[in-house]
Amino acid sequence: MSVHSDASRSMGESMDKKVAIFIGVMIAIIAVLCLMFSMGWLEVTPTKYIDTSVNDGVYDDTGLTDQFQWTKNIMIWFMLMMVAFLMLFIKKFEWGVCLAVLLSAAGSYIAYVAIQEFFFGAVWDETLMIRAVICAITIVIGIGVFLGTCKMWHYLLVGVLFAPFYSLLEWCLLGNISIFGGAATDPGGSMLVHMCAAYFGLGVAMTLRNKKAFDEPMYTTTHSVSFVWLASLVLWVLWPAFVTSLLPSSEVTWGTITCYMSGLGSIISAYIVCMLAQGKVNPLTYTYALLAGPVAIGAALLAVGPWGALAIGIVAGAISALCFTYLQPWFCSKLGILDIMGVHNLHGMAGWTGALITCVLVGSAANLGFAVLTVVITMVGGAIAGVIMRLTMGKEQEICTDEPDFIRNDAPGMEGA
Amino acid sequence: MSVHSDASRSMGESMDKKVAIFIGVMIAIIAVLCLMFSMGWLEVTPTKYIDTSVNDGVYDDTGLTDQFQWTKNIMIWFMLMMVAFLMLFIKKFEWGVCLAVLLSAAGSYIAYVAIQEFFFGAVWDETLMIRAVICAITIVIGIGVFLGTCKMWHYLLVGVLFAPFYSLLEWCLLGNISIFGGAATDPGGSMLVHMCAAYFGLGVAMTLRNKKAFDEPMYTTTHSVSFVWLASLVLWVLWPAFVTSLLPSSEVTWGTITCYMSGLGSIISAYIVCMLAQGKVNPLTYTYALLAGPVAIGAALLAVGPWGALAIGIVAGAISALCFTYLQPWFCSKLGILDIMGVHNLHGMAGWTGALITCVLVGSAANLGFAVLTVVITMVGGAIAGVIMRLTMGKEQEICTDEPDFIRNDAPGMEGA
Amino acid sequence: MSVHSDASRSMGESMDKKVAIFIGVMIAIIAVLCLMFSMGWLEVTPTKYIDTSVNDGVYDDTGLTDQFQWTKNIMIWFMLMMVAFLMLFIKKFEWGVCLAVLLSAAGSYIAYVAIQEFFFGAVWDETLMIRAVICAITIVIGIGVFLGTCKMWHYLLVGVLFAPFYSLLEWCLLGNISIFGGAATDPGGSMLVHMCAAYFGLGVAMTLRNKKAFDEPMYTTTHSVSFVWLASLVLWVLWPAFVTSLLPSSEVTWGTITCYMSGLGSIISAYIVCMLAQGKVNPLTYTYALLAGPVAIGAALLAVGPWGALAIGIVAGAISALCFTYLQPWFCSKLGILDIMGVHNLHGMAGWTGALITCVLVGSAANLGFAVLTVVITMVGGAIAGVIMRLTMGKEQEICTDEPDFIRNDAPGMEGA
Repeated sequence: MSVHSDASRSMGESMDKKVAIFIGVMIAIIAVLCLMFSMGWLEVTPTKYIDTSVNDGVYDDTGLTDQFQWTKNIMIWFMLMMVAFLMLFIKKFEWGVCLAVLLSAAGSYIAYVAIQEFFFGAVWDETLMIRAVICAITIVIGIGVFLGTCKMWHYLLVGVLFAPFYSLLEWCLLGNISIFGGAATDPGGSMLVHMCAAYFGLGVAMTLRNKKAFDEPMYTTTHSVSFVWLASLVLWVLWPAFVTSLLPSSEVTWGTITCYMSGLGSIISAYIVCMLAQGKVNPLTYTYALLAGPVAIGAALLAVGPWGALAIGIVAGAISALCFTYLQPWFCSKLGILDIMGVHNLHGMAGWTGALITCVLVGSAANLGFAVLTVVITMVGGAIAGVIMRLTMGKEQEICTDEPDFIRNDAPGMEGA
Repeated sequence: MSVHSDASRSMGESMDKKVAIFIGVMIAIIAVLCLMFSMGWLEVTPTKYIDTSVNDGVYDDTGLTDQFQWTKNIMIWFMLMMVAFLMLFIKKFEWGVCLAVLLSAAGSYIAYVAIQEFFFGAVWDETLMIRAVICAITIVIGIGVFLGTCKMWHYLLVGVLFAPFYSLLEWCLLGNISIFGGAATDPGGSMLVHMCAAYFGLGVAMTLRNKKAFDEPMYTTTHSVSFVWLASLVLWVLWPAFVTSLLPSSEVTWGTITCYMSGLGSIISAYIVCMLAQGKVNPLTYTYALLAGPVAIGAALLAVGPWGALAIGIVAGAISALCFTYLQPWFCSKLGILDIMGVHNLHGMAGWTGALITCVLVGSAANLGFAVLTVVITMVGGAIAGVIMRLTMGKEQEICTDEPDFIRNDAPGMEGA
Repeated sequence: MSVHSDASRSMGESMDKKVAIFIGVMIAIIAVLCLMFSMGWLEVTPTKYIDTSVNDGVYDDTGLTDQFQWTKNIMIWFMLMMVAFLMLFIKKFEWGVCLAVLLSAAGSYIAYVAIQEFFFGAVWDETLMIRAVICAITIVIGIGVFLGTCKMWHYLLVGVLFAPFYSLLEWCLLGNISIFGGAATDPGGSMLVHMCAAYFGLGVAMTLRNKKAFDEPMYTTTHSVSFVWLASLVLWVLWPAFVTSLLPSSEVTWGTITCYMSGLGSIISAYIVCMLAQGKVNPLTYTYALLAGPVAIGAALLAVGPWGALAIGIVAGAISALCFTYLQPWFCSKLGILDIMGVHNLHGMAGWTGALITCVLVGSAANLGFAVLTVVITMVGGAIAGVIMRLTMGKEQEICTDEPDFIRNDAPGMEGA
């Protein structure tokens, strides 16, 4: 059973009905927010706040942008490494998480730049490096769904296999195709990164079908969870580097404003929902759900003002926290697999939230179509990767443990401390 | 008894006398340093070192400054999160510190930007975001005084209540009023941030009057203190982003030089004082006192050269370390409250040091007046917040513990590990 | 016995022979790589990838470069502090590592800037600060060789003593002398920083000759090693700031590309070598060896393309991992001292790799001469520092423990937890 959820696992008919009601309530919340936006009760356009003419023509120079992009490139790599620590809460499975993150990042980065250079003819510059590390962080998030249920070298393999599907999805989302008469609106990666990660990971997990995860005790300690707090707080801080990384410089300030305001919204709403739902805060729900605002704002980044961003963050944080508590047991039971790190509750659900709200904000159903396309491409890709992994799995191994992969040097009598 | 101090708590007459002597010695040290500056034995003006004309006219462009400010905005947010880990040393009260930091930051940030936009008519830009996160980090420091003695939701409330008092103080310090014929000299926030945090926190604590903290054992572990080392070292590193964040770009290099040189001074002097005073280093004194130089240099940032900054750092580090060891027991006994995180020893005392030395450096008593004004505004504000918190406290709770707020998932037989 | 190595310590004749074969194999690997470069099978010159004319003339402006350098200055300080956490794996010796890092950094930084200002007449600017923090991080790496075997105040002293030797070496490597008719090629510090650190540290350790380290159990815990993962991952991320810190802005992007590509190479090869050599991963080999690519690329930074950098990283990661496993026991046995943190396996060996490969890449033997010069200057300097430390060592103390230096505040029954 996932440590993310303490809810009952009695998955009878009544549970299905409750979850149906729950999903209905969530859709209603999103609908109310959309209504408020469409009625103009929450400002939609940031133009009244910012004099964009100030920055016009300033950033044409390649050199300046290069210096700026360099900093963001480093910061996104920093975030990638922090994702490892966000998933470090199972005491007996800490080092393996770090190694899995490194191997999947290396495999996907190298495969991605090879595809871009040799297939698409890309030139090596700051932009290519940023696009490559965004590809890498996406699979690093994605492995969270099945982390600890495969061989260590599989993470390197899955990184390589992920890159072509990501490249295809990126090509679709970056304006090369139209759906419902429009291109995707996703400057901050709600679909390209977050939904992609969640559904690729689910595609792998549903093919692997390792049910042992349900029965594996995933005990934490004070300090293993303190590392998660560290990662969550640093990820929250660095998030503007990620969502603004490929924007023209004149739009970066705006994207940073909306990113932080949405993040402040989910810091507050995730706390309130945790307390209302369970009376206490589950740290592994809260540290994840407080990032739901920045996930959801990705699509709406430049289509909303600061107070609208705050509202989106409040809604996304609440939805994510509710999903960890109520949806995950039912969802995992129905799929027959355990989403180990609760990736779908954060990246999947908040990604959907951002994609759908943006339909209202920009007045186009295109994002709905692209969101569905994202799910299709990534689940097919994940399933293919999962089949290859399953065929090379060899004999079964213990799950979510460092034991098969690492040498320890514990003091006598303190083994495993 | 605070874990910061191992000194005896026998608070008789002789103690009062000893503390009086101690305070006299500290004032004498500051006076000697001021004398050296005023006699020209330590260089005061940086002009002989740096050719400021080189940078003149370079940074007029809004765009470039925006890119630079963007990076600092992120770094100050990073520092804010590190303050949580600086206060994470009580093993049974780690996660709650993180949550309290997030809630107080969210409350103060949102309230501050609302005040600035709707009352002062501010425009949303990089500068507003930086000013808002500085407001937020100030209350995050300030809650250290009473951390763990109130309800978790109180931190959100205290953030909201703090914002108007901070906005008032900021208005006073940023040149809108004169005292003794001059404006405040405080480019790096010795008064605006550090003294404000310490005395607002003391104002709250003195109103709450929770004496249970004196009897609460605050045990640490190797790793809980290692998190504090991590936070202290990262805070030290990022400090120039904070003190230079609102400077014209041409003064940033100078502020960075003096910030780091003062920090190196307190790294050395805090170590020496710890060893002389107790024969061993108390890590919770040292990791705090090594930041005293950067705190104190805030006011003197641009009024001193690198070697003068080193001297200020040496003095501030020594004073802070001495206060943790000798002043805190007497100070807390007299006030009847325990300064849980020793905020006054670092931010209060080093803030005073910086404010007073700057009077000599710039030849004006204005900073003395503004320092007193800072204490008055913030203690009144803190007292008002404290009254509201006390009225809503409900039944008494355990202090400095995660137990009432968090769900745990420990292995059987390892509860609390 | 070092925790880095689990290999047998039977150091007979057969061991010597095995190590000779091992060294031969390593040289052969480097030779093959050099051959591939010299035959043009791996691209050498990056010019086909990047249009350098784009950036020409953009960065002449002092102001812009200052802003860029400011960010790197902060990031290198961040790396310096992370080196402390890279060495934090011995549970009973965590806080002392942090304090030793701070004291050695402070001593070397202050001594270095004093030498540069008062002897060489340097002006205080961003470049001076960056050069000073590079000096400081070099000795911080260097103390890893003898960490825990001297008095705490010795680290402050050794920092001061290190600065003049570093200044001399820097003067030699920065174009003031020629060897074999050429200047050194070392833009990213393979020799100036990494070899310097390793051999200065070895010089100190060989003079101190503290053999107790061989018998000291250096037990780790899950979380003490998790801090090492954190440090290693963050160091890997920030590395481009370090290797590109003194480059003209137009070359920064290229240095960042090759730095990350070489790092990805060692992430993969160090894993494979660990698994082949021992069947499991020793985390204290892997977290160090994954940094070997960025160490080795320092000299070759601008003389190779991305895929060549990947090849260098693969070779360096493999060599470093092999050295931790096979060379360290023999090497330490022969020298009669224990390289506590395995500094030579990472910084020494990968430094040599980078220096030698660059001879082929740039078609000059100069780097070979400068590498030897680096070893000579730093070992003499280290020996002098070691003599002074030995004369002031006083009575013997326990090694690699926080016990003599720190006050603890453990819960009753949990002492040392």
